[in-house]
Amino acid sequence: MKKEESSKSGCQLRVAVVGRGNVGTHLVKALTPLAIVESFDSRRASEIKCEFDYILIAVSDRAIHDVAAALPKSDAVVAHTSGSIPLEALQPFQSKIGVFYPLQTFSKEKTMDYSEIPFFMEGIDDETTEKLRELALKISPSVYLADSEQRKKLHLASVFACNFVNYLYSNAWQIMDDAGLPTEVLIPLIHETAEKVSRINPKDGQTGPAARKDLPVIHSHLAMLENDSHKAQIYRLLTEGIMNLKE
Amino acid sequence: MKKEESSKSGCQLRVAVVGRGNVGTHLVKALTPLAIVESFDSRRASEIKCEFDYILIAVSDRAIHDVAAALPKSDAVVAHTSGSIPLEALQPFQSKIGVFYPLQTFSKEKTMDYSEIPFFMEGIDDETTEKLRELALKISPSVYLADSEQRKKLHLASVFACNFVNYLYSNAWQIMDDAGLPTEVLIPLIHETAEKVSRINPKDGQTGPAARKDLPVIHSHLAMLENDSHKAQIYRLLTEGIMNLKE
Repeated sequence: MKKEESSKSGCQLRVAVVGRGNVGTHLVKALTPLAIVESFDSRRASEIKCEFDYILIAVSDRAIHDVAAALPKSDAVVAHTSGSIPLEALQPFQSKIGVFYPLQTFSKEKTMDYSEIPFFMEGIDDETTEKLRELALKISPSVYLADSEQRKKLHLASVFACNFVNYLYSNAWQIMDDAGLPTEVLIPLIHETAEKVSRINPKDGQTGPAARKDLPVIHSHLAMLENDSHKAQIYRLLTEGIMNLKE
Repeated sequence: MKKEESSKSGCQLRVAVVGRGNVGTHLVKALTPLAIVESFDSRRASEIKCEFDYILIAVSDRAIHDVAAALPKSDAVVAHTSGSIPLEALQPFQSKIGVFYPLQTFSKEKTMDYSEIPFFMEGIDDETTEKLRELALKISPSVYLADSEQRKKLHLASVFACNFVNYLYSNAWQIMDDAGLPTEVLIPLIHETAEKVSRINPKDGQTGPAARKDLPVIHSHLAMLENDSHKAQIYRLLTEGIMNLKE
């Protein structure tokens, strides 16, 4: 009876997730229904003793080296989850190394549909890549291979599409606050703009004063920003880019 | 019988929409179930003869003046739909003037939920403002008053939150194309980023290398952009802004 039980659990994948930040927290949530998952604090990486099939290092870029160095030698597939760090960063310490990169912005408290997240895999050899792919496919059907160079480009693109976009939202929030207007009225516009990229290449869907080269409006906007040189610089640079896009 | 019919239709509001661009097309669609609506080409404004309760001038900013000048004198509330043009632009031509500004980005072919669109009203006097408010409330519960100065600020904020955001999407698309990566993998990230502003002030939700002052990643991103000085300028300016935001 006991044996049966243990062999049953032996069929399930065993995954250690190191790191309890946004990515680590969500990987544990996503994998818990699909595998036997243990979560480890990054300072306790050296204590990972049990046999795992996968050890996922979901810590900040600068901590990856130390965690990888602290891990006991293992037969597990050891993968980090960073967009920017090359696979080779794990090479001195482990053999079956890889990258398991989910392309999403995570907030700890938020419930997410993990099946919508694209995962990007890289392994030191075909067998490792395949094992990582198998694990990712349990979570999401969108699983891609990307080498370290492509992953860096992907990360750069996501900085434009997510981090910089959020910063523009923040600028818009400030303008509304300063004018005594309620920020929530911008939300339907923001959602529609984000929806539109599913239907139309953003280059072809560009609207607004810059797209129609409406100089009187552009000048009146710059006049409103004359006491905010940072926003005026952003306005000028992006307007110039949009005007060139349309030529 | 005939009299009854005409008195019945007399209970319904009669709205003329001048202009058949994105805004005009969608106003006609939104109002058709709620009022008797007629659509006019902007070059035919002088032919608007029937008695309307409202004449909405949904044409490009630079055409508003000519359309307003061409309209026959009327008892209707005459309002334009522009974020940038002051109410006074209509003053020389009509008496019951106003602004009826929907804050949304419209694409002609797209079906939209009009009840989610915020409308911003301004009238030359209280009665006109109230009439415009009544019309807007038929379409959406989000109806606000905003004077011409506030509307200009609102328009400026929407340039940041919509037009500039779309331009950043376009930059991300280019980076993906150049790296041979599928652009659609960015879409869940884009949607999540847009969703997040409903829950959290974008200033507090800022993530990414600039927010965590991750200089090695920032430098490696700038190195990837060394042959694209425009994108590098955007990267530097927005990264600088985000780093100051967090201080």
